Amino acid sequence: MIIIGEKLNGSIPSMGKAIAARDEARIKDLARKQTEAGANFLDVCASVTPDVEVETLKWMLDLVQGEVDTPICLDSPSPETLVKALPLCNKPGIINSISGEGNKIDLIFPLIADTKWGCIALLCDDRGIPQSVEQRMETFAMIMKRAEEFHIEPSRLYIDPLVVTLSSNESALTAFAECTRQVKAQYPDIHITSGASNVSFGLPVRKLINMSFMILAMGAGMDSAIVDPTNRDMLGIIYAANALLENDEYCLEYIGAYRDGVIGPPLEERKK
Amino acid sequence: MIIIGEKLNGSIPSMGKAIAARDEARIKDLARKQTEAGANFLDVCASVTPDVEVETLKWMLDLVQGEVDTPICLDSPSPETLVKALPLCNKPGIINSISGEGNKIDLIFPLIADTKWGCIALLCDDRGIPQSVEQRMETFAMIMKRAEEFHIEPSRLYIDPLVVTLSSNESALTAFAECTRQVKAQYPDIHITSGASNVSFGLPVRKLINMSFMILAMGAGMDSAIVDPTNRDMLGIIYAANALLENDEYCLEYIGAYRDGVIGPPLEERKK
Repeated sequence: MIIIGEKLNGSIPSMGKAIAARDEARIKDLARKQTEAGANFLDVCASVTPDVEVETLKWMLDLVQGEVDTPICLDSPSPETLVKALPLCNKPGIINSISGEGNKIDLIFPLIADTKWGCIALLCDDRGIPQSVEQRMETFAMIMKRAEEFHIEPSRLYIDPLVVTLSSNESALTAFAECTRQVKAQYPDIHITSGASNVSFGLPVRKLINMSFMILAMGAGMDSAIVDPTNRDMLGIIYAANALLENDEYCLEYIGAYRDGVIGPPLEERKK
Repeated sequence: MIIIGEKLNGSIPSMGKAIAARDEARIKDLARKQTEAGANFLDVCASVTPDVEVETLKWMLDLVQGEVDTPICLDSPSPETLVKALPLCNKPGIINSISGEGNKIDLIFPLIADTKWGCIALLCDDRGIPQSVEQRMETFAMIMKRAEEFHIEPSRLYIDPLVVTLSSNESALTAFAECTRQVKAQYPDIHITSGASNVSFGLPVRKLINMSFMILAMGAGMDSAIVDPTNRDMLGIIYAANALLENDEYCLEYIGAYRDGVIGPPLEERKK
């Protein structure tokens, strides 16, 4: 399971405030904590107005990369910003994101064509958030055609089938899972990822829906997620589901994560 | 999702003591609490020596049926005991259990043939706990042939594919899930159930494995489980998975369970 740590994102209110206040300690602290909790990549998103986005990203990236070696998941809604900010990263990470919308592919695919960068690809296009599996798979086919043009291997792509809100759309999970199965059947080496927490919007006890979505999506073949790795309950069920799905021989990763205090009760509580 | 409350079982040490001490209040309390938490059936298992098993079950059944109307899941390893105890139940429930072993089917199927009783059927036989999907499906085929002889409809059967210990058998969940899919494909009206907690034996933070197993098994088609309905975390993810799997239109059951205080923080904590 490839964990993309979600916390360094200015659209989270507390992080937005930390960025506005140029709180260096907070950025560094979350870079370290997410890395210690096992994040494979750290999402870095400024979520500020376009005129100051690149300089804000530069400030965040310098702090994060000064603190940890974890590769960056470079996150912006603007492909122009991504083009400018990519050279600020010390090593290849993941671009977050392209989709079938506008000029995103035209700007990003040539940029990463001959690199080791990965790329998250959302299965939406200029028609907006797709409602059906078929619409998502049309966008997927188009993206894969363009990826082939630029010789971007499937193993560098993180497909996000997009999850809608369960309370207004009963098939939020089942459509996501069906896309996941179809995409994985076509390209076994491709990755599937998701931000996931949209699914529970408007419902009580959102963590129950978010955790259950995570496990059911993993059961369908999702092998990456943009989550808070310091959320011990969520990380715990991810490790558990990974073992149940035969991705963790003899449960060694699960047991190791417990021993390291990453899942289960924190080490300091166990001493009591 | 059909919830079979597991707590009135003498093999649980605290319940074994309550039975030995003839603690009437404890039996009645757990009958009521499990019913209030939404149990559809209450498992009743004496777990005592055969010579006193029927009289112990009678004592438990009288207390439970005096307290609540919830139908009984009558639980004994001995088919002879089940034959004697069934008439002590006020209304049809579920027999727990038959399998391909010994004379179980020969004694139980004629007994329930012309009734509304359901029956849990474990996919093991005299060869012991099955290791492969194929062995389980052979036992399943045999059980269904015998069920047909006695005109027992598939909708009255609760198939337990049997889960082995994950730490020693990597395919504990995947074999269970594959059986579930094959059984449901053959008989869409049949039920699939499981005790489930064996899966986590020998591993730390067992609840993480148990909860993830539950959700992945539900994703494969399991529609019943023998669980503790007063375990709010477990019940919460069951309601959540049920909604995600399109079994709860507009999440009305999920939202209702939250409003009733059955899932999420207890009502008394929310007032604070």
